[in-house]
Amino acid sequence: MDNMRSKKYYFKFQARGYELDSYGHVNNAVYLNYTEQSRWQIFNELGLLDQFMASGLKIVVIENHVKYIRQIKLFDEVEIETQMEKSAHFLLFKHVLSNTKTKKTLSKVMVKTVFLDENDKACDIPESLLETFTEA
Amino acid sequence: MDNMRSKKYYFKFQARGYELDSYGHVNNAVYLNYTEQSRWQIFNELGLLDQFMASGLKIVVIENHVKYIRQIKLFDEVEIETQMEKSAHFLLFKHVLSNTKTKKTLSKVMVKTVFLDENDKACDIPESLLETFTEA
Amino acid sequence: MDNMRSKKYYFKFQARGYELDSYGHVNNAVYLNYTEQSRWQIFNELGLLDQFMASGLKIVVIENHVKYIRQIKLFDEVEIETQMEKSAHFLLFKHVLSNTKTKKTLSKVMVKTVFLDENDKACDIPESLLETFTEA
Amino acid sequence: MDNMRSKKYYFKFQARGYELDSYGHVNNAVYLNYTEQSRWQIFNELGLLDQFMASGLKIVVIENHVKYIRQIKLFDEVEIETQMEKSAHFLLFKHVLSNTKTKKTLSKVMVKTVFLDENDKACDIPESLLETFTEA
Repeated sequence: MDNMRSKKYYFKFQARGYELDSYGHVNNAVYLNYTEQSRWQIFNELGLLDQFMASGLKIVVIENHVKYIRQIKLFDEVEIETQMEKSAHFLLFKHVLSNTKTKKTLSKVMVKTVFLDENDKACDIPESLLETFTEA
Repeated sequence: MDNMRSKKYYFKFQARGYELDSYGHVNNAVYLNYTEQSRWQIFNELGLLDQFMASGLKIVVIENHVKYIRQIKLFDEVEIETQMEKSAHFLLFKHVLSNTKTKKTLSKVMVKTVFLDENDKACDIPESLLETFTEA
Repeated sequence: MDNMRSKKYYFKFQARGYELDSYGHVNNAVYLNYTEQSRWQIFNELGLLDQFMASGLKIVVIENHVKYIRQIKLFDEVEIETQMEKSAHFLLFKHVLSNTKTKKTLSKVMVKTVFLDENDKACDIPESLLETFTEA
Repeated sequence: MDNMRSKKYYFKFQARGYELDSYGHVNNAVYLNYTEQSRWQIFNELGLLDQFMASGLKIVVIENHVKYIRQIKLFDEVEIETQMEKSAHFLLFKHVLSNTKTKKTLSKVMVKTVFLDENDKACDIPESLLETFTEA
């Protein structure tokens, strides 16, 4: 069944000094670091990380689409709201970054991922993950 | 005049050990580092870097769309072919990463940028840059 | 007066997935990122950041000495305890990283810094900073 | 036999835009990235990389001591000269970074490493590596 959606997950953090580039704002590539960590956080919260590692499963990014709406500055407090969506055998992550003080949207990031099995072959999204989509 | 296109530019490099993540391949965010450097390289080759800095011009990324086609491993030799395109007052960069040995395409990255003047207001693409589009 | 010491400052964080290298632990260079952020945090807490920026002061690292005692893994919770020390016109930072759960020491980092004025000349440690050394 | 020394190895590169921090020069942590890559390069040149990986050997950094002498700016061309030295069961790397145009020394980095076997136990420096110390 397609277009199943998870509940929303949240990851909060503060922009760090070494993430700024010579323009004095967070470098464009760092947004991908942030969203990657929000995904690690979700799997950790769901208790799936050890299971994935034990079974040799990897989750691999095959597409990142980032829209930069407002710049992020040193010590800005940022929240990433993430919703997962199943689309065929792909797992989509829809990340929205916002400033927790101003509530303004900073960036929208769509990430398309696929699971690889222990032989690096694309495989279905693990059932243990999909089950969490209907729990909320 | 829209959809003006530049000639193609090339940037070659080798994947480095510290760019690998725990999956043993180059981390997805690093592709944005690579493409950013290919753009710095173009401006440097064109002799525009000092001019931009002197005039307070900044070029800011407002969208990155990355498709990951093949993984990049330690010491892989990579070439980025880049073509710039004018679209309204946006400057698009179309990057294609390929392995210089196997000739296989590794990634395609579309980057949408805008120039900001010394007051951080969006401005037109500098004439000195557009002139290079017709030279080739 | 030399060898004046500040009180101790604390910075807590969790190791992130993209900070791991191909060995599956936090890469050695990332320890410098962590300690850099703990210093930004101190200046921010002391309300000195805006003052430094307004006066054109920069604080520049001239030496880093890192001892790696235990590896840091994904989601490890880490605390950096930092004490500043004046030595001639240098400002030393003595950072100790420990795991907040096991209480074990992970790393010791000694950082030697110097302040540069708006002309990039070495200058004395700002009085406003030294005053905080005797407050505690 | 202690204090055996290897010949000198060289790694050349250009400083990249995304390596700059908000001070407009290469961030202090990036020097560790550079020197790490120079070590990967040496093992690769010596044809030891596959051998280490096949035998489950890891080389782990236990100490980094960096002296920053001159700042590195965008597009600076840098050369790292590296000499390895055996000290007990530790392998030391003495890196000297210099600007290839001005010939001025930019940084000196002393790195202490140890080899871990497939059970993550400290072990002797591989013979295949030490043999290269007497070849030159």
